[in-house]
Amino acid sequence: MEINRLQKLLEGVSAAPPGERPADWLRLLDIEPAADLKADLLAFAARRREVKAVTPADLKTVRAGRLAALRNELTRQGLAGFLIPRADEFQGEYVPPRAERLGWLTGFTGSAGIAVVLTEKAAIFVDGRYTLQVREEADGTLYDFGHVTDSPPETWLLENLPAGAKLGFDPWLHTVDGLVAIRQAVAAKGGTLVAVSPNPVDAVWSDQPPPPIAPVVPHPLAFTGREASDKREKIGAELAAAGLDAAIITQPASLAWLLNLRGADVPRTPLPLGFAVLHKDGTVDLFMEPLKLVRELPQHLGNGVVVAAPEGFGPALDRLGLARRRVLVDRGSAGVWVVDRLKNAGADLVMGEDPCAMQKACKNRVELDGTRAAHRRDGAAVTRFLAWLAKSAGSGKISEMEASEKLAGFRRQNENFRDLSFDTISGAGPNGAVVHYRANARTNRLITPGELYLVDSGGQYLDGTTDITRTVAIGTPPDEARDRFTRVLKGHIALGAARFPRGTSGSQLDALARASLWQAGLDYDHGTGHGVGSYLSVHEGPQRISKIPNRVPLLPGMIVSNEPGYYKTGAYGIRIENLVTVVRLEAPNEGVPELYGFETITLAPIDRNLVDLSLMAPAEIAWLDAYHARVRDTLTPLLDAETAAWLAEATAPLATIKTAV
Amino acid sequence: MEINRLQKLLEGVSAAPPGERPADWLRLLDIEPAADLKADLLAFAARRREVKAVTPADLKTVRAGRLAALRNELTRQGLAGFLIPRADEFQGEYVPPRAERLGWLTGFTGSAGIAVVLTEKAAIFVDGRYTLQVREEADGTLYDFGHVTDSPPETWLLENLPAGAKLGFDPWLHTVDGLVAIRQAVAAKGGTLVAVSPNPVDAVWSDQPPPPIAPVVPHPLAFTGREASDKREKIGAELAAAGLDAAIITQPASLAWLLNLRGADVPRTPLPLGFAVLHKDGTVDLFMEPLKLVRELPQHLGNGVVVAAPEGFGPALDRLGLARRRVLVDRGSAGVWVVDRLKNAGADLVMGEDPCAMQKACKNRVELDGTRAAHRRDGAAVTRFLAWLAKSAGSGKISEMEASEKLAGFRRQNENFRDLSFDTISGAGPNGAVVHYRANARTNRLITPGELYLVDSGGQYLDGTTDITRTVAIGTPPDEARDRFTRVLKGHIALGAARFPRGTSGSQLDALARASLWQAGLDYDHGTGHGVGSYLSVHEGPQRISKIPNRVPLLPGMIVSNEPGYYKTGAYGIRIENLVTVVRLEAPNEGVPELYGFETITLAPIDRNLVDLSLMAPAEIAWLDAYHARVRDTLTPLLDAETAAWLAEATAPLATIKTAV
Repeated sequence: MEINRLQKLLEGVSAAPPGERPADWLRLLDIEPAADLKADLLAFAARRREVKAVTPADLKTVRAGRLAALRNELTRQGLAGFLIPRADEFQGEYVPPRAERLGWLTGFTGSAGIAVVLTEKAAIFVDGRYTLQVREEADGTLYDFGHVTDSPPETWLLENLPAGAKLGFDPWLHTVDGLVAIRQAVAAKGGTLVAVSPNPVDAVWSDQPPPPIAPVVPHPLAFTGREASDKREKIGAELAAAGLDAAIITQPASLAWLLNLRGADVPRTPLPLGFAVLHKDGTVDLFMEPLKLVRELPQHLGNGVVVAAPEGFGPALDRLGLARRRVLVDRGSAGVWVVDRLKNAGADLVMGEDPCAMQKACKNRVELDGTRAAHRRDGAAVTRFLAWLAKSAGSGKISEMEASEKLAGFRRQNENFRDLSFDTISGAGPNGAVVHYRANARTNRLITPGELYLVDSGGQYLDGTTDITRTVAIGTPPDEARDRFTRVLKGHIALGAARFPRGTSGSQLDALARASLWQAGLDYDHGTGHGVGSYLSVHEGPQRISKIPNRVPLLPGMIVSNEPGYYKTGAYGIRIENLVTVVRLEAPNEGVPELYGFETITLAPIDRNLVDLSLMAPAEIAWLDAYHARVRDTLTPLLDAETAAWLAEATAPLATIKTAV
Repeated sequence: MEINRLQKLLEGVSAAPPGERPADWLRLLDIEPAADLKADLLAFAARRREVKAVTPADLKTVRAGRLAALRNELTRQGLAGFLIPRADEFQGEYVPPRAERLGWLTGFTGSAGIAVVLTEKAAIFVDGRYTLQVREEADGTLYDFGHVTDSPPETWLLENLPAGAKLGFDPWLHTVDGLVAIRQAVAAKGGTLVAVSPNPVDAVWSDQPPPPIAPVVPHPLAFTGREASDKREKIGAELAAAGLDAAIITQPASLAWLLNLRGADVPRTPLPLGFAVLHKDGTVDLFMEPLKLVRELPQHLGNGVVVAAPEGFGPALDRLGLARRRVLVDRGSAGVWVVDRLKNAGADLVMGEDPCAMQKACKNRVELDGTRAAHRRDGAAVTRFLAWLAKSAGSGKISEMEASEKLAGFRRQNENFRDLSFDTISGAGPNGAVVHYRANARTNRLITPGELYLVDSGGQYLDGTTDITRTVAIGTPPDEARDRFTRVLKGHIALGAARFPRGTSGSQLDALARASLWQAGLDYDHGTGHGVGSYLSVHEGPQRISKIPNRVPLLPGMIVSNEPGYYKTGAYGIRIENLVTVVRLEAPNEGVPELYGFETITLAPIDRNLVDLSLMAPAEIAWLDAYHARVRDTLTPLLDAETAAWLAEATAPLATIKTAV
């Protein structure tokens, strides 16, 4: 390997998340290094990562300096301001270090938000999860703080943008729809919104990491159940049938699914970042850093896929335009850059839905068998954790962080384990009421008897992605918490046991999970269920179970979470989450030709100590007992004797107790 | 009164529905006629109506002649074809005789449909309710038949419209949105869609009725609870606050509500047909045939309302345009004519929602008290009917039409009764399974022991509009029907007893009414609930409870139906319908600051013989018993002793039976 390629590789590797397998990238070398060189290379990459992760001691000064530098750069470019969203080119939930411009500039590390920097003023806008955090992390003397929906950037701009000003944005980091409101506000002030590329932040961020480099590997047929060539050809034919010449694949998860690839460019999700053009004949032009493709990849991709460097993407769009092609672009993920480039080149643009989305969402038999197997192993790990917790937490000496590390340890022992599927939420007492809580050294609480403990966690296994929440009582729970837990459980059961005709969407079912809480004047301020990928994103569309109207029907093979909850600020949080898959049921009557229901695939006990039987209908108790019997029967063979004994108790039927009462 | 005005009046009167009060129109004369003249005038109007209602004996030939005449007219105007929707200028559910162009031309009398007439071919498109009826009524040798969503006009046009053709439409009878698909199809054939006014059908329909004339009367404050001037000023101010200069009121129901008017221009709904411009200062220009306004109306309308003849509407739109006004137009009801006229005149057009819709939907205290009173009287009439039916139907000699006439007779005796609120659905056995069944001489069935009987009916009272469906077993019902009825009842109760936070829409609650049917693989193919007016339309938006997503929140004072059902084709139909009103409940917890629920306002017994107690939860039985107790306590004082005795039995608690079992 030439020295400059090796250098680029090392730079890129240290700009990728280390993940659970920090030596995997050595596969990208074109030689097998000797043991000592190997050790040196790994140490070098690790050290570079560490250096980058260090927060400067004089952070306050540094932040002010960064903002000043950006303002100079904006002035130099004739801009009155610039937008800095927490986003990458793929509108991903997880972004690589290079895309953490908002964090670098402002100090705010949340997973969503946008800053607006003007010459004299600046502001950061976040959602309800981050209203406190942004004030702690960013400097209130430099930034105003706003709520992204209650007091959004467009309102702030109406007040603060000078008349006739030019406001810049990075066209890679925004969708067309995402800019509508801001564009209107700028127009109302007689200004213009201008696309600026490269990003001015990059010009002043001297040690900005390069794009990440992590191995992109084939995902075998044993896990995908369907050849990539078959996917390409079928979807290509569907494009043709719809009168389209090509589709731009701007979601890395779709790319991964379509070509049976997995990568490691962002934390917690095996995404290979890149773009592709899928032609109606089923061929694909893949634009991805060649350095990150493992040796066997070209053969895996086959003749129908041409790999090119990322720089080739723009010219490829130009060629589509020049040929006046009718091109489908995904409205939800395509950046303005892609849309503008196609439009300017003369393409006949169709803004629509990612053509892979529905087929990716409806898992095939192999994927479903895989995820069931992954869920058995994952359930066993969670059960070992819960048994350990039951034995240990009474001491009051286990902290939230220790607990989540313990749980991760059990998962790591599992076959096919590759990573956690997201940062574990491990919340004791009042911390459980913070819906997106992440314990850190400052917030870390001891898990204390008399409190509830909520743990939301998941794993990335080669054969499936898991996501489970359990809430357990440490010691004796207060009556109110039992009432609330039981209502959440009733909602969980109502949804889990629901049957519904073909065509029903998740938004139609959402109320079933809330009705028992609503009866008591309670609710929860998040969705009831999100789609889940197959060794891919733990949050995957297009289906969801939510108050927000959507028309996507729930179809067989879709995986979705069932996670009602209840949160009492300052006191406790409750959530019960299982993943379920949509299954076709026998339709006993002519009225509904296709009847669907859910199969629960997550397997771990639900805390019986928190169930108030007086609120439970016989059918609900029967559901829970049947679920617990399945958990017990399935997991016991995977457990040590001690854990199995604990599980037997934790899953003992409640029906007998109810009858006795 | 001059003779030509009298003639116009008589023509218009005989073109309005006779309704229940065929002498009301005499108020429109400017003299009090002597008794014999009065009798002559009434007889004259009645005779004219009868003559018009007669179907020609040689209908087949007549229809072919009408189609040929229309085609000649189209050719004369250089058109390759023309659209004939079943619609009037107000997109109303009920239309006056003048607007029955589809029926006159084709013979099809259903309440929805559209014909497309081309030079060589023609077709009629209807929805699922009318697929059989259209084949019976229209001539299959003259028309193709299509389903309005499965094989819509646009698809038929793609096949049958000659390339480059001019297809005409009447701009008064279509909304902009309603034409989108057809416009695309015509464009795809290289043709053009052209607005044609006056309607070519009118040119060949020699004895077409004129616009209807029926008295437009004040609706007193005792029923409306709010002065029209207050409504005008408040909504005007809201327009101003939204940066609008005026709104075009194109829904007669909104006009009636805004100005506290009622009319009788269409059957079953007290609508005064007309248009209005509401200015931001709260003044109104009302465009309505002056002949139909009763003498005291100008005083009732006051200084803020200027009445002008319908011919003045177009010039008024032109003036708004000339002054470059920002004008709100209701997307759902405004015809293309209105939109084009405003646009061409230079107005700044805002397509949005009728500004009266939400305030009209949220009834005030006086309206709610009125509708509760109307429902008590209506419930007593329904109860007298059900008692009579219980006594009489065992004979097997009562027909559907006799039954519905009997029910109407009980309603007619009620105070404030003005009309039925829709044509009664009176369906025995298999006829009950036809969701929009209307018994006629040909279909009329005897109500037979061993069958179910479904009756859906309602009244227009000055103080409220009612709509109720009951399904009763004649003799001993089959077990399957009891199972289905009980599931429908469980859905009805789940919805009726639901509580939900502010912001919840009807589409979020819809599944609660279906879940018990879905569990058995059953469903019903209609919405669960529609809004209801206050002595106005029995179907009123914008809220609804339906599978179709909508974001309109259910708010206190809204009236909505709760009407799940089940239909077994060829066997029986079940529907249980009560009207409910949204009420604010005490919110016991901080989680939901505003908690809402439903108050059931319809009062009549639900057939206990059809309830399978083994399927009912204790809370459901308690709900039904409590409802029945309220029905009994409220209605008994309004009933004769025999009916009261029957009601006592029909509403006896079921809880004791269940316990005994």
